Amino acid sequence: MNILFSFLPKPEQQANLIQRFPHEKFYFQKPFDEETLRNADIFVTYGEDLNVSHIELADRLKWIMVASAGLEKMPLKEIASRNILVTNVRGIHKIPMAESIVAHILSIKKSLPIIAQNQRDSLWSKRVSSSEIFDSTALILGPGAIGGEVGRILQAFGVHTIGCNRSGEPADFMNEMVSFSDLKKALPKADIVISILPSTVETRNLLTSEHFHCMKRTAIFMNFGRGDVVKEEVLLQALQNNCIAYTVLDVFENEPLKEDHPFWKMENVVVSPHVSSHSSQYVVRALDIFSDNLMKWLNGDTSLKNVIDLERGY
Amino acid sequence: MNILFSFLPKPEQQANLIQRFPHEKFYFQKPFDEETLRNADIFVTYGEDLNVSHIELADRLKWIMVASAGLEKMPLKEIASRNILVTNVRGIHKIPMAESIVAHILSIKKSLPIIAQNQRDSLWSKRVSSSEIFDSTALILGPGAIGGEVGRILQAFGVHTIGCNRSGEPADFMNEMVSFSDLKKALPKADIVISILPSTVETRNLLTSEHFHCMKRTAIFMNFGRGDVVKEEVLLQALQNNCIAYTVLDVFENEPLKEDHPFWKMENVVVSPHVSSHSSQYVVRALDIFSDNLMKWLNGDTSLKNVIDLERGY
Repeated sequence: MNILFSFLPKPEQQANLIQRFPHEKFYFQKPFDEETLRNADIFVTYGEDLNVSHIELADRLKWIMVASAGLEKMPLKEIASRNILVTNVRGIHKIPMAESIVAHILSIKKSLPIIAQNQRDSLWSKRVSSSEIFDSTALILGPGAIGGEVGRILQAFGVHTIGCNRSGEPADFMNEMVSFSDLKKALPKADIVISILPSTVETRNLLTSEHFHCMKRTAIFMNFGRGDVVKEEVLLQALQNNCIAYTVLDVFENEPLKEDHPFWKMENVVVSPHVSSHSSQYVVRALDIFSDNLMKWLNGDTSLKNVIDLERGY
Repeated sequence: MNILFSFLPKPEQQANLIQRFPHEKFYFQKPFDEETLRNADIFVTYGEDLNVSHIELADRLKWIMVASAGLEKMPLKEIASRNILVTNVRGIHKIPMAESIVAHILSIKKSLPIIAQNQRDSLWSKRVSSSEIFDSTALILGPGAIGGEVGRILQAFGVHTIGCNRSGEPADFMNEMVSFSDLKKALPKADIVISILPSTVETRNLLTSEHFHCMKRTAIFMNFGRGDVVKEEVLLQALQNNCIAYTVLDVFENEPLKEDHPFWKMENVVVSPHVSSHSSQYVVRALDIFSDNLMKWLNGDTSLKNVIDLERGY
C-alpha cells in the first residue's frame, strides 16, 4: 500500500512506522506532491490541505486519516460520494486541552499575570488579590470528552460543575445538567463559563448579549470550542460594559486574529492563538491511533477507531 | 474578656464576631495600642508584631491566636515561661497554596508566559512548545497537609507522586515515599521537585549542589516552604549551569528579595513574593477557627484546635 503523509513526523517516529509496517510504502511530504497522492491508498493529513480536485485525482484513495479533530476544511461531500473512509483523532485533545483550560483559570485566580508584571519591574509587591477556584461553580458548554475531562479535574479542585448540552441529559463529571434552552437560568450561578462546543447549526451564535447579561459580573468566560459560538462584537461589548470580568479565548471568528483587533490590548482578555490542544505528545498519540487502525486495515478489518459519519460531519 | 486584634478584619467580619460573642469586648487595632494589650486576655495577631517587652507588659494575657502558620518571629521562650497558650491556623494554607503551586506548574507547561508575551506584541504565533503534566513525576519534599493536597490534585492530573520526609514513612496521596537520606536516588525520576518544608534544624540547607546535579535537566524546582532549604548561590549556579530548566520561588533566603537580585531578570525564574497562600478566603477561615476556639475557651475548655507545642515550635 502507498501511504502518504502531508505532514512530517519526527525522524524516529517515521522510522518506527516503517519498522512496524515493513511491507508498506510510506511517503512523508510537506506539502505533498500531487503525483504521490494520485497513487496513494491511504492519506494522512491535518485536514486543511485537501480540495475537491485532489479527491478527483486520487483515484486509488480508500482511507483518509485526519490527525486533528476539525473537519470543516475537508470536501466531505466529494469524499462521501467516492466512498472514502475518514477517521480522525477524536479524544486526542482531551488531556492537553483540559490542562490548558485549567491552567488559564488558575493563572487568573492566582494573579500570575500581575506577579509576572511585578517581576518585570523587579517589584516585591504582596498586593495581589488572589482568589480560589475551590467552592466555585463552572458551567461547561459541551460536556463531551474534553468537557468531561475539564469537569473531572475541576471537581478534584472542589469546583461544582454544571454541564450544558442540547438535551440536558446527564454527562460524566457534571454535578448538574441543563439544556441549551435552560442556559439562561444556569448562567447566574457560574463563576466560570467554558465553551468547548463544536461549530454546528445549533451552536452558531448560541450565545447572545442576553446570555452575557445573565452572567456574574465577576465571571470568566472561556471559549475553547469554535469562534462562532458568539459574535465577537457581542463579546467585546459584554467586556466593555463589565457584564463579565475576564475572557480567555483560544478560538476566534476569524483566525488568525487581525493585528489591530482590540482583544490584543485589552487587560481583561487573554488571546491564546488556538494552541490549547498543542502538546509534545500530540503526534505520538495520533500515530498510535493511526498504527492501530492501519494494523486492522491491513487485516481487512474496516471497523476502525474514530470513523467519521460523513453526513453528520463528526 | 478583652480580645485584641492587631489586624483589621472587614467591617462585616468584625460585626459577625461581636454579634456571636456579645458579652466579650473586641478591640481591632492596627498597629495595636500597648495600653490595650496590657488589659487584653486574648491577642489575635499575624505573628510578626510581638516582642519580649510586650509579653512582659501583657500580664493578663492567657491566649495568643496567630492567624498564620509561621511562628519564627514570636518570642516563644518568654511566652512559654508565662504559660500563655498559643494556637495558629495550621491547615488554612492548604487550598490556596495547592492551587498556587499547580497554577505555576501548569502555566510553565502550557507556555502561558510566552502566550502573554506574544499577546503584548499582538503576535499570532502558534510556535509555543507546550507540554503536559499528565504522566509526569513530581517529588514533594514535605508531604504534610499542604504537600498532600498538592499530591491529591496532581494525581487527578495523572501525575505520579513521590513524597520525601525524614522517615520515609507513608503519607497521603503519595505513590512512593523516600527518606531525606534517599533523596538523591529519587531526584533523577522527577520532572517537578516541590519543597514545602518548614525551616528546622534538619531542613536548613538540606538541598546542596549535588542534589541539583541529580535532577533532570528539564526539571522544574519549586520552593514554597522556607527559603533556607537551599542556599541561593547553590540554586543560582544550578540554573546558570542548566542543571535544571526552571525554578518557581515563593520564598527566599532574604525577603523581600533585593531589587538588584539576579532572580528578577532571569527568564527561567519565577519570583512570587511569598503570596502563594494569599486568598480572599484567608481571613474568613482564620476567623472560623478562632470563633470555634473562642467558644470552647469561654466554656472553660482549653482543648483548642491547633495548639502549638512551644518547645518544638510547631
